[in-house]
Amino acid sequence: MTGIAKQGILVGLILLGACSTYTGKGSYTQPGISKREESMTRSRKKMDTPEKDHQSHAASHGGKAVHWSYSGEEGPAHWGDLSEDYAACNGKNQSPINLTGFIEADLKPIEFTYHAGGKEILNNGHTIQINYKEGSRIVVDGITFWLKQFHFHAPSENQIDGQSYPMEVHLVHASKEGHLAVIGVMVVEGAENKTLTQAWSHIPAKAGNHHALLVPVAAAGLLPAKRDYYRFNGSLTTPPCSEGVRWLVMKEPITASKKQIETFTRVMHHPNNRPIQPTYARPVLQ
Amino acid sequence: MTGIAKQGILVGLILLGACSTYTGKGSYTQPGISKREESMTRSRKKMDTPEKDHQSHAASHGGKAVHWSYSGEEGPAHWGDLSEDYAACNGKNQSPINLTGFIEADLKPIEFTYHAGGKEILNNGHTIQINYKEGSRIVVDGITFWLKQFHFHAPSENQIDGQSYPMEVHLVHASKEGHLAVIGVMVVEGAENKTLTQAWSHIPAKAGNHHALLVPVAAAGLLPAKRDYYRFNGSLTTPPCSEGVRWLVMKEPITASKKQIETFTRVMHHPNNRPIQPTYARPVLQ
Repeated sequence: MTGIAKQGILVGLILLGACSTYTGKGSYTQPGISKREESMTRSRKKMDTPEKDHQSHAASHGGKAVHWSYSGEEGPAHWGDLSEDYAACNGKNQSPINLTGFIEADLKPIEFTYHAGGKEILNNGHTIQINYKEGSRIVVDGITFWLKQFHFHAPSENQIDGQSYPMEVHLVHASKEGHLAVIGVMVVEGAENKTLTQAWSHIPAKAGNHHALLVPVAAAGLLPAKRDYYRFNGSLTTPPCSEGVRWLVMKEPITASKKQIETFTRVMHHPNNRPIQPTYARPVLQ
Repeated sequence: MTGIAKQGILVGLILLGACSTYTGKGSYTQPGISKREESMTRSRKKMDTPEKDHQSHAASHGGKAVHWSYSGEEGPAHWGDLSEDYAACNGKNQSPINLTGFIEADLKPIEFTYHAGGKEILNNGHTIQINYKEGSRIVVDGITFWLKQFHFHAPSENQIDGQSYPMEVHLVHASKEGHLAVIGVMVVEGAENKTLTQAWSHIPAKAGNHHALLVPVAAAGLLPAKRDYYRFNGSLTTPPCSEGVRWLVMKEPITASKKQIETFTRVMHHPNNRPIQPTYARPVLQ
């Protein structure tokens, strides 16, 4: 990773491979960044020459991400076949998983330093995502991971002891070297969530649309009071399914009102959870 | 893995991709078995049709493994480029690693049921390997893994807190579903090891050669008295570098005499340790 780290490439800004490109003033530069991440994943063999590979990759694909979906011919069972850039989707360390068979471990508390910083909400056709201002962070394994964005899946992607949840939040963080850490928070039906109330007031109903959030949204409102967590090693849950991602799933769920959950599922039109993947040799810690 | 599991394919029998094929009475059927393992790895996209993929794979390559080595153009830095079957060598969950940054965990004792069963010793040009009779096993995570073979690397492949060792034993086990668990044991210079004395008395000096061991060799003689261990999730350390391997590295080393270690390095002619790979998001448990 050293070569890439030296390039200072931050890949976590936008992780979900949307198929539309917004190149306005906002930070929604997803396809370009996404291609970098894909390229990094695909060409780990060229670790010492990431720039060169980026160029050849961009040239061969014209910078366009291959389309994928949650059902049919472009659905999860086919992601690994849709593009060589998505080959990691066939890997043995994929997310989501059913978290079970836990190994008791001395997991140090995650250090959260979150500021209100959700600055833009977008509908990329795969999820609703809130892009975050710089400056909010967590520390895990002594490494600082910066909050880049959070987004939603309904029903939940991960399961806990075989249990699915109505919705799951993914808070996506990247270290300065481009390594990723995702905090997963399960959502159950209950009291209204204030962060969602604020965000959903600007929810774009149409894929490809986005809205600025003039009053920054606070990601801390999506964390449970108790921060005990499960940990495992996984991947992005959407193409390019890049591995090497620290997954930290909160044990305690948060609540959202029935209406809030329905607002999301209505805008999505379809479930947006990748099916659980085999755990293979991975320990799941608690 | 279900589809493959149903096929009952045991892939762990011979894991190191030797470039020569012995198809006599012995169990040294490496390239064939190895290709199955490669095929499984490469074509996780075809999980539901492993048979079909095996056929197409064998057809396209004529069942021959691509040559690799420990230095030069076919050395470790190039393994992932030598063949699409070796693409996993560029993965983010590769072995060996430097075991460090440990997470304290409640690792259950490994249940060993080892019988004297080393029945054949072979030199495949990459290592000296002792193939094992059926019936010896360990239990990890409630899963039974059967000892298939053990082999050696000098210097050690894994490191512990940055420390390399003169030699490392890998005891390779496979579950009936074809999942792998490898026990690593570090070897330091000291008292002669009786299991090695017995095995080395038949050591084939020439790559491609093998000898039957009429008095079965006992793998238990390669385990330390104290069985505390480190655990991480990794891969084969040689092409095809398949991931999804449970790694269990003994904390306590065993000893071998200076002469015993030199016997191995002299027969190998070169170091046979893959360089350590980045740990990325993997927890290392102790």
